[in-house]
Amino acid sequence: MKRIITAAITGGIHTPAMSPYLPITPKQIAEEAVRAYEVGAAVAHIHARDPETGRPIANMDYFGEIAAYVKSRCDMILCFTTGGGMGMTTEERIKVVQTLEPELASCNSGSLNFALFHVLDHMEHFKHDWEKDYLAASEDIIFPNTFKTLREYTEEFDHCNTKPELEIYDIGMINNVAFMVNKEHLKKPVYLQFVMGILGGIQPTVDNLLYMYNTAKELIGNFEWSVCAAGKNQIKMCNMALLMGGHARVGLEDNLYLEKGQLAKSNAEQVEKIVRIAGELGIEPATPNEAREILGLKGLDRVKY
Amino acid sequence: MKRIITAAITGGIHTPAMSPYLPITPKQIAEEAVRAYEVGAAVAHIHARDPETGRPIANMDYFGEIAAYVKSRCDMILCFTTGGGMGMTTEERIKVVQTLEPELASCNSGSLNFALFHVLDHMEHFKHDWEKDYLAASEDIIFPNTFKTLREYTEEFDHCNTKPELEIYDIGMINNVAFMVNKEHLKKPVYLQFVMGILGGIQPTVDNLLYMYNTAKELIGNFEWSVCAAGKNQIKMCNMALLMGGHARVGLEDNLYLEKGQLAKSNAEQVEKIVRIAGELGIEPATPNEAREILGLKGLDRVKY
Amino acid sequence: MKRIITAAITGGIHTPAMSPYLPITPKQIAEEAVRAYEVGAAVAHIHARDPETGRPIANMDYFGEIAAYVKSRCDMILCFTTGGGMGMTTEERIKVVQTLEPELASCNSGSLNFALFHVLDHMEHFKHDWEKDYLAASEDIIFPNTFKTLREYTEEFDHCNTKPELEIYDIGMINNVAFMVNKEHLKKPVYLQFVMGILGGIQPTVDNLLYMYNTAKELIGNFEWSVCAAGKNQIKMCNMALLMGGHARVGLEDNLYLEKGQLAKSNAEQVEKIVRIAGELGIEPATPNEAREILGLKGLDRVKY
Amino acid sequence: MKRIITAAITGGIHTPAMSPYLPITPKQIAEEAVRAYEVGAAVAHIHARDPETGRPIANMDYFGEIAAYVKSRCDMILCFTTGGGMGMTTEERIKVVQTLEPELASCNSGSLNFALFHVLDHMEHFKHDWEKDYLAASEDIIFPNTFKTLREYTEEFDHCNTKPELEIYDIGMINNVAFMVNKEHLKKPVYLQFVMGILGGIQPTVDNLLYMYNTAKELIGNFEWSVCAAGKNQIKMCNMALLMGGHARVGLEDNLYLEKGQLAKSNAEQVEKIVRIAGELGIEPATPNEAREILGLKGLDRVKY
Repeated sequence: MKRIITAAITGGIHTPAMSPYLPITPKQIAEEAVRAYEVGAAVAHIHARDPETGRPIANMDYFGEIAAYVKSRCDMILCFTTGGGMGMTTEERIKVVQTLEPELASCNSGSLNFALFHVLDHMEHFKHDWEKDYLAASEDIIFPNTFKTLREYTEEFDHCNTKPELEIYDIGMINNVAFMVNKEHLKKPVYLQFVMGILGGIQPTVDNLLYMYNTAKELIGNFEWSVCAAGKNQIKMCNMALLMGGHARVGLEDNLYLEKGQLAKSNAEQVEKIVRIAGELGIEPATPNEAREILGLKGLDRVKY
Repeated sequence: MKRIITAAITGGIHTPAMSPYLPITPKQIAEEAVRAYEVGAAVAHIHARDPETGRPIANMDYFGEIAAYVKSRCDMILCFTTGGGMGMTTEERIKVVQTLEPELASCNSGSLNFALFHVLDHMEHFKHDWEKDYLAASEDIIFPNTFKTLREYTEEFDHCNTKPELEIYDIGMINNVAFMVNKEHLKKPVYLQFVMGILGGIQPTVDNLLYMYNTAKELIGNFEWSVCAAGKNQIKMCNMALLMGGHARVGLEDNLYLEKGQLAKSNAEQVEKIVRIAGELGIEPATPNEAREILGLKGLDRVKY
Repeated sequence: MKRIITAAITGGIHTPAMSPYLPITPKQIAEEAVRAYEVGAAVAHIHARDPETGRPIANMDYFGEIAAYVKSRCDMILCFTTGGGMGMTTEERIKVVQTLEPELASCNSGSLNFALFHVLDHMEHFKHDWEKDYLAASEDIIFPNTFKTLREYTEEFDHCNTKPELEIYDIGMINNVAFMVNKEHLKKPVYLQFVMGILGGIQPTVDNLLYMYNTAKELIGNFEWSVCAAGKNQIKMCNMALLMGGHARVGLEDNLYLEKGQLAKSNAEQVEKIVRIAGELGIEPATPNEAREILGLKGLDRVKY
Repeated sequence: MKRIITAAITGGIHTPAMSPYLPITPKQIAEEAVRAYEVGAAVAHIHARDPETGRPIANMDYFGEIAAYVKSRCDMILCFTTGGGMGMTTEERIKVVQTLEPELASCNSGSLNFALFHVLDHMEHFKHDWEKDYLAASEDIIFPNTFKTLREYTEEFDHCNTKPELEIYDIGMINNVAFMVNKEHLKKPVYLQFVMGILGGIQPTVDNLLYMYNTAKELIGNFEWSVCAAGKNQIKMCNMALLMGGHARVGLEDNLYLEKGQLAKSNAEQVEKIVRIAGELGIEPATPNEAREILGLKGLDRVKY
């Protein structure tokens, strides 16, 4: 029994003040991916950041650097974000797919309030000027993914032979995916990433994860799926996914901690933890090539990096 | 056992080409509300439309006309929309609360794709020029209700002593409401309207309605709730709500039909149907004053119309 | 859309002191069945009682009388009980199938405490000597239906070409049925009767009914199903079944009342009520022949009565 | 965060032919309990077996020997079975409580088919004469626990100040417990043991465990709970319980394997596995005294052994 472990290396949510271990530069991000690979991750989910300020940015050069470095070191699958950071246009967000033609990229399946402002209740110190405003601004931010965006993105993905990892933030979005499947904008079996615990979306509870899974089974039928959860329920939801037959995504994008009160020093530490739990359950982490098989990916020889 | 029946008179979704019985002018809308009242509705949910073209519009004069006419005829509760139509600003949408200070108004608890474009697959004829574009445009429309909007709206509602009817389109929005309760922007017991069946939101199934209810019980505790469902599952979901202890909203905003293939000639016909089902279950429709008691409303003598 | 309405005419639970309308003699039971048929029931579920004392009894002569009378009047499907009353042997209970070779008979799919003793808290007067002891004794009664019984019964049913209506009192019994299907003791599609509200079994709530249905879908796949509920939740659970695509069983076996505080004067009154609710939902009651088609029954010309 | 790990040492289901590691003699059973204690179990669930043949037996001398040995070695809590083996009378089954007045004993909350016969499909060799018949006979066996038994047992438990661990094999039994609580035969907070995977009862799935928990929350309110699961889903269900806030029971009574194809050489190996998983989730095993606090037990100084 093999399952895919994804490491979401740095994301666009956390800010440098929150953890000294958050990778910032292309090289740091790439090295973190490789370290995660070495302990069992088959996929790295990639965002980029401004090397100076650590602010999330969708810069093609940085994406390219990260991709080249990782590829030079291992055969890991790279799953680039098309979610970007707050305020990017949909054209900016999809560009990485068009440029690098990766095997896998995220494709967000609906719109929601994507709110981080409440973390400011517990933050006193900031490392960079932009951090406080960036977080505060999210009180008025919608992460925009309309049916038109979805349609256009799926056409681009198709064109680049990039498999969409469909981010699901709430129950209705599973129906959005089913709608796109029925309209033949998406091909089965789809790959769903249940993203739990964003304020504005569905929360990370065992009830909710089971309900998401059952809803997808009812509306879509056969599919591959993974889960990630923001914050302290990260490992709990990943563990639950393993019990339910799903794949799991860990990483500093979703959670900066390894245990209560203890910052993770690396994405790899979280990968190691979920691999140990998997091992107790008789589950082995899939290699990149096994993951390619499970997800039906085109292969590393057909990317543009 | 009393339950509140709401009639959503005309809404902002359906277009005149879809049914000749859709009320358009302020007087038609008001008369439909009164007719619904006469057969058991305690609440009318009010949108306005351009009397010439039937296009949804948030015009204070029309709202005022409707309110005055209904008040001259009966003591029904009016619940004004703050959702408005596509493309309105949040300032435009809240104005009706500030102007009329009604007992009840809708307050949408999150953002989602609010999509109607798929109905065009089955429409050939249009009555007005705007209809086709209006529906088609919804492929790229997000109904925007950020945490900032929510906060500002709840402050306005509070100021006007208007009770928010919190529209819930998906599971995550129940958590949004719980968040606003915890931050003391909303007072318990809140009044939730589960809106099912919008493409982009949660779909109208018995599983989903039960799950919404159980989630709200877990996150919020005590609350009043109602359900409405777009399209052919309208009566089914309302019936289910009655079985579960909830209130029910019918009306031409949600569904133009009375039965399969048979257009409803009036909102009142749908009210009569749900009242008959309620009767079989030993449930009586609440009068407006009984509904005021259940929801804790300020009373008709304290509105500005 | 057609659904099967079953009337469970007299059962083995209620005692004559509880309602003057409970049919007792073979003729009364048969006439109640016919009356139920006339207002929409396609199936009558038949128990017999001692004509003198009203005590439940599995007497072949009485069963034969009832069957002959009903058959002389209409083409209703008769579903004989193999549950019998407390204390009967499994051989006594199955005899009615062997004797009359009916189209349909109940087949209980597991063992449980079948407790009625708690109703004594609210009963002061008894009509017959046996009633109080009969009810009190149920504190120590198990309704015995082992896997051996199940196997032997299904063989008998098969031999007589009688379709088993599989009574399900709890979640585990759905797995019992699935086990018997896998072992080829039962043929698909099976017909399940979810019996809710017996003290000792699963209780009549919307959550439980939905969970039973979802469990059966998961474990068995395609099947026909109906629900009945003991006591005041009878109509509520039947209404819920109609919303979910199921059939419904009413009758004085399950509930003596028509509404709160108002005894049903006849099984037919309960049939009429559920038929009215069905009508509001666009559902028509199946005729006996339509029910035969839905359930795959052999036909009235092949019974031995 | 502390959770109680119980080891169910030998049980009455498995037969000696199934594993050479199944403890049989009082001394073997006691030593297995102590070994489980040493790696984190706070409670041992105790059945006895005939030292010659390994057949389950409720012999007071053996129970006493086991108790004395364990007590001489550690302060572990002993939870004696009142379920016994097939065919024992209810008087025989309760005798261990009256004799030893333990801190904790099992109290089965309803009747069900308790079937093991299907394991014979995969067994060719037997160690003792009785094994095959014992297993085969279970096709016709009901585990009898009526409301009268329950009432009498709870009175005995009360008299001996022994806390009942209420075995729950299906959803309806949660209602049985709620009924006994309402009738004041049981005091809150009760301690529930969800027993999953017995053929005849509810099966070990994540859906079912979550549904049991939610049902108990609805019907009983506050309670302590643990789970055990027969067969290969043992660790999976225990892991799920840890995720949900519950306690966990492992042991050779429930499962003879440590991993697929690998027999557990000792109860302790299974305890170690669940303790490792708990550790990854930030959960520590409760010591016996911490478990006494959680469950409200009288203490080891007040038992009669």
